[in-house]
Amino acid sequence: MTKTLNVGMVGYGFMARAHSNAWSKVSNFFDTGYRPVLKAVAARNTGKAMEFADRWGYESVESDWRRLIERPDIDVIDICTPNDSHAEIAIAAAAAGKMITCEKPLARTAAEGLPMVEAVERAGVANMVWYNYRRIPAVMLIKTMIERGMLGRVYHYRAKFLQDWTISPDVPQGGPGTWRLDVDAAGSGVTGDLLAHCLDTAIWLNGSIASLTAMTETFVKERKDALTGATKKVGIDDAAAVLTRFENGSLGTFESTRYARGHKAAYTLEINGEKGSFAWDLHDLNRLSWFDHRTPGELRGWSSILVTDGDHPYLGKWWVPGLIIGYEHSFVHQVADFLEGLATGKPAAPTFRDALETAKVCDAIIASGETGQWVELG
Amino acid sequence: MTKTLNVGMVGYGFMARAHSNAWSKVSNFFDTGYRPVLKAVAARNTGKAMEFADRWGYESVESDWRRLIERPDIDVIDICTPNDSHAEIAIAAAAAGKMITCEKPLARTAAEGLPMVEAVERAGVANMVWYNYRRIPAVMLIKTMIERGMLGRVYHYRAKFLQDWTISPDVPQGGPGTWRLDVDAAGSGVTGDLLAHCLDTAIWLNGSIASLTAMTETFVKERKDALTGATKKVGIDDAAAVLTRFENGSLGTFESTRYARGHKAAYTLEINGEKGSFAWDLHDLNRLSWFDHRTPGELRGWSSILVTDGDHPYLGKWWVPGLIIGYEHSFVHQVADFLEGLATGKPAAPTFRDALETAKVCDAIIASGETGQWVELG
Amino acid sequence: MTKTLNVGMVGYGFMARAHSNAWSKVSNFFDTGYRPVLKAVAARNTGKAMEFADRWGYESVESDWRRLIERPDIDVIDICTPNDSHAEIAIAAAAAGKMITCEKPLARTAAEGLPMVEAVERAGVANMVWYNYRRIPAVMLIKTMIERGMLGRVYHYRAKFLQDWTISPDVPQGGPGTWRLDVDAAGSGVTGDLLAHCLDTAIWLNGSIASLTAMTETFVKERKDALTGATKKVGIDDAAAVLTRFENGSLGTFESTRYARGHKAAYTLEINGEKGSFAWDLHDLNRLSWFDHRTPGELRGWSSILVTDGDHPYLGKWWVPGLIIGYEHSFVHQVADFLEGLATGKPAAPTFRDALETAKVCDAIIASGETGQWVELG
Amino acid sequence: MTKTLNVGMVGYGFMARAHSNAWSKVSNFFDTGYRPVLKAVAARNTGKAMEFADRWGYESVESDWRRLIERPDIDVIDICTPNDSHAEIAIAAAAAGKMITCEKPLARTAAEGLPMVEAVERAGVANMVWYNYRRIPAVMLIKTMIERGMLGRVYHYRAKFLQDWTISPDVPQGGPGTWRLDVDAAGSGVTGDLLAHCLDTAIWLNGSIASLTAMTETFVKERKDALTGATKKVGIDDAAAVLTRFENGSLGTFESTRYARGHKAAYTLEINGEKGSFAWDLHDLNRLSWFDHRTPGELRGWSSILVTDGDHPYLGKWWVPGLIIGYEHSFVHQVADFLEGLATGKPAAPTFRDALETAKVCDAIIASGETGQWVELG
Repeated sequence: MTKTLNVGMVGYGFMARAHSNAWSKVSNFFDTGYRPVLKAVAARNTGKAMEFADRWGYESVESDWRRLIERPDIDVIDICTPNDSHAEIAIAAAAAGKMITCEKPLARTAAEGLPMVEAVERAGVANMVWYNYRRIPAVMLIKTMIERGMLGRVYHYRAKFLQDWTISPDVPQGGPGTWRLDVDAAGSGVTGDLLAHCLDTAIWLNGSIASLTAMTETFVKERKDALTGATKKVGIDDAAAVLTRFENGSLGTFESTRYARGHKAAYTLEINGEKGSFAWDLHDLNRLSWFDHRTPGELRGWSSILVTDGDHPYLGKWWVPGLIIGYEHSFVHQVADFLEGLATGKPAAPTFRDALETAKVCDAIIASGETGQWVELG
Repeated sequence: MTKTLNVGMVGYGFMARAHSNAWSKVSNFFDTGYRPVLKAVAARNTGKAMEFADRWGYESVESDWRRLIERPDIDVIDICTPNDSHAEIAIAAAAAGKMITCEKPLARTAAEGLPMVEAVERAGVANMVWYNYRRIPAVMLIKTMIERGMLGRVYHYRAKFLQDWTISPDVPQGGPGTWRLDVDAAGSGVTGDLLAHCLDTAIWLNGSIASLTAMTETFVKERKDALTGATKKVGIDDAAAVLTRFENGSLGTFESTRYARGHKAAYTLEINGEKGSFAWDLHDLNRLSWFDHRTPGELRGWSSILVTDGDHPYLGKWWVPGLIIGYEHSFVHQVADFLEGLATGKPAAPTFRDALETAKVCDAIIASGETGQWVELG
Repeated sequence: MTKTLNVGMVGYGFMARAHSNAWSKVSNFFDTGYRPVLKAVAARNTGKAMEFADRWGYESVESDWRRLIERPDIDVIDICTPNDSHAEIAIAAAAAGKMITCEKPLARTAAEGLPMVEAVERAGVANMVWYNYRRIPAVMLIKTMIERGMLGRVYHYRAKFLQDWTISPDVPQGGPGTWRLDVDAAGSGVTGDLLAHCLDTAIWLNGSIASLTAMTETFVKERKDALTGATKKVGIDDAAAVLTRFENGSLGTFESTRYARGHKAAYTLEINGEKGSFAWDLHDLNRLSWFDHRTPGELRGWSSILVTDGDHPYLGKWWVPGLIIGYEHSFVHQVADFLEGLATGKPAAPTFRDALETAKVCDAIIASGETGQWVELG
Repeated sequence: MTKTLNVGMVGYGFMARAHSNAWSKVSNFFDTGYRPVLKAVAARNTGKAMEFADRWGYESVESDWRRLIERPDIDVIDICTPNDSHAEIAIAAAAAGKMITCEKPLARTAAEGLPMVEAVERAGVANMVWYNYRRIPAVMLIKTMIERGMLGRVYHYRAKFLQDWTISPDVPQGGPGTWRLDVDAAGSGVTGDLLAHCLDTAIWLNGSIASLTAMTETFVKERKDALTGATKKVGIDDAAAVLTRFENGSLGTFESTRYARGHKAAYTLEINGEKGSFAWDLHDLNRLSWFDHRTPGELRGWSSILVTDGDHPYLGKWWVPGLIIGYEHSFVHQVADFLEGLATGKPAAPTFRDALETAKVCDAIIASGETGQWVELG
């Protein structure tokens, strides 16, 4: 018997669109035992919220997320607001006994995130952070293959997330669309926004990071405030590069920037093991590069796997071999796994607690960027 | 004021899924003046139809498409059945004054398709054939750039559609999933299934084909019937290769097969003009290759355009630069254009009449494959 | 004991450079039992010939190739003149008992080539035609793997050779550098110049062609004569596309043009077998693409083999893994194989007789391009 | 008037082959005013030296490099021995008034290299270090374009050099072929061998490095000595990763390893500027990737330039567009530039002094790898 799951959305921005699409599409493709219902959306700007509700089919609108949390007909609160409000909403929602799915990063800092973890664990509510790139089929395939021992001992992990949209000093900070450049709203710059994705995947695939050193930079020192128009010091990191040692003895290199001309959402990762290597690129997310050292020598090479077959992760639910999927599907998979987690009682990762580890690494990067010193973790 | 458009779906197979997704998703992303409603699905197998209706949110089920056509609350009939039933359904639907969107190819032959064209034109109803690959943003971008004169005189057009799923003689013919191997249901093999896509795009981008010669082959001569289990002669073309002369003086080469090991849905096209060339590949559908001869010599090269920016066709409606879309989006675009065509009165292409031209070229390929002679068209 | 082999070069143009480099370099890298000596170069323009001899270390110069042939100290005649003089020189050289290596194509037509074959066979002299692309390591690797049965039954072979250097009508015909546009000197256009390479490789890898139909075109109808300046009708084919049936039952498609904007020497080939497929591109000649159907499904993909390892064909003689070689190396390999053929008594392919088969296919293409009819070969 | 330049080679290993090929081929392709003559080769193992001399055409052999330096008929000493002998040979050769070309790195450390610099400058002899990758045409094209202002302000520079040949603990250290794993002979591991290349190019293209922090690792702690068979502690760095700040304000990331499964000589670099970005890969050395931000938005992309045209650096001397060159050509270009430097009096870079800067950066990497601290340079 399929149960309904009533979704209460907080926010109506870019991530709210991606999540709403996922909640509304999942039942067309996946059989999880749950059918999400887009119940209500909460936002201070009720005009925008109503427009959003109309477009996505939410049944009602609330002008305050507190009201949403109070409603007995809401099962899960989906937090799609800027980072500085995650903690307050999540803690209140947990106290009200709601399940919570929170857009990444967990919070602006680990210190801010810890009470969130404690709140959901205390309340015993299902919780998840939307690190959606784990659910790209090619990335999930790496995970599966590592678990099957296809890499052997790992020597290297490297990841980058490159963008170029803030090169112009005319891009403002704060306000819708650019709050990620405002340190008060975002907590950090590329570290929390982009590196956090790289780190979440890395820890999941390769285990915990033991220590790191980092270099951070703010190329554009002042930007206008999008709301007031006043010129303000920029508090975020525009770029960050990190050297890490993983607990398994492998070395990691991470880099993220919004100043790499020509790159839009260039999240790439590579992992080199004794027996083989995997490499992946978000821009071509349906492909997985795989080097298998066991192939006879003359025919050994990097294989470009088009991850669209029925036996690839999630793909049996979509189309037929050769027909690719896109960015938004990772969110649908995330929802499918969350719902399946409810059905089976095995919570879908990453939970708030999982995401706290990533937050700690982000904090260490910001700290090391300031001191120039190695930071020990864990 | 947004009007509703009630959709009556005929069929519940692969294409019915792709179309249903498009009808249900379009209003989340596009503002066309119309909002489709998934009203009813018709199929002889009512159990399957009810399951399908439940999954996609169709409000009701009919066991006979004739009943669907009679319903006054249905605005548009979407034909997603095998090719041999397109004509009968379409002609009846037109007579009932319904709009019609018909899965490609139009029919098994041009002779079968012509009365369909006459029927919709007589009835004056909106009509469209789902040659969805025109609506891939990268392909639409080629069209836009050709219209801006970026190619100059065209010398060459080449396209291939390669698959490998029928190499095993154990694949049956007929029945769900494999009716495309049964000449009675499909009309032809790769010509109507795969080349038809290539030809539709080619004619749209490069104008009519004046003449052609073709080679066709059936590699596996007998296959079991999926329903009866009896061994039957295979009547379809497993592979087809074609040389064409376009009316604009350029030369074309086309090839399609289901015996190209390693290729799943490898639709590739390239067009070479005096001033530049475009190339595109369905497996990496978000990328467009472009060679601009006007670039200063030392820096001239093939440019890989990631067609995900807000000023690229359709992309302003989706996510942000760098985040790719997939196969299914082409259908959403097709619906969006169809709806916009209703709103503006400028019908979305390809209409039934447009698709008839492609059908004639397909017929000529089958004929030339048998005679070995050049066929003059037009 | 290493023997010397005295080389008499006829011509000093582009191909004479490529061959001279190969003769002079081979002994630095390969141990064949022979050491070529650049003995003499013959050309009517003795000023140019002396300059060429000085640059490459030829010991002397002759103003007439007939004199070269008469010299008792010359072991092998290397024919690097335009196509219209191949037959006369080769027949005379054979009569004088010289070994002969002749630049491709063998002659302007098969009719012109046949007496050449008869002459070398009557004289019993070593003979070879410089279809150098067989000796690209990646191409040789395909050959090796086919012989090991890695493809199984072959379904498809396709090859293209695309260039863009004659799009401008200002390119003249005739004269040095542009004699390939003059039908009297060249015999044909892209068919003998470019397709001949594709055909040589195809026949070598996939067996004889049984029948074909072709389309040829001359886009620019008149060009100036480079020597006289007079406007003359263009007699060559600017572009050619061919459909073939191989004797092994597989289908072939071939295309060649000098009007494909953006392509310089884009010789690409692909062969699809039951068990796997190979693809290769001259622009990236050190790479071989290989799809192995036997790989377990989830990790199956097209593998890009960097053919630079010590166990790859010829590569053990060059550098270390990862360090690529270029165009000119194919000629060095050709010489090495020719010399080894002398040492072992097993003549290096393609011999004049092998090349005659390619000439017959070229003739059939030109003929079919005129009649539009299929031509049966063999 | 062309002058001869008599070359005295020290060593007969891999690099001696690459250099000998360059000295012997340069005059076939380049007109520099000098014609190198392979005069003599010096090595303790005179059997090997005679074999080498015979293969490459050296006229004589010396069993001691000191004898070579004393010979009045030698113009230039080419040092191709392991790193630990560079200094002694170079200082003696300079004292004898010989020109010197020294294989990279300059020496094991900057401390060892400084007296070499002083010696050649005191003697006033032409000197060069073989950082050959600067002379890859695509890399030289980057240099040219940066000088033309095509990048504007630079934000990021990243380079990697990945190999996988020492993953097996059975690879020995010391001896021919594996002396690079012996810290006494090599000075360092991947830092001096691989990163040194990356750093040389980086400093040349992007200016001096102001400061850095590094992580180094030795994965295999003990290896057999190739000569004695005794197990010995490994003293080299197997992998190194570096964060740098350039003097121009841009950030750099560098990584090198011999434990990246699937990579053979994967030297890749990328530079991101305000107006565009370049990327390059040694495995596909004829291609240059270029993103031009000034291209109109819809057609903006990464362009793959096939650097084989006549107007590309060095390419006018080789073949025709589309025909690629390989690894060894970079050495021919290096010789051509060295000879032209002699002719014009403008010394070819990198000189010993240029290479000293790279040595200092290498030293800083090794030091920082031990202390974990940032090191200020310059």
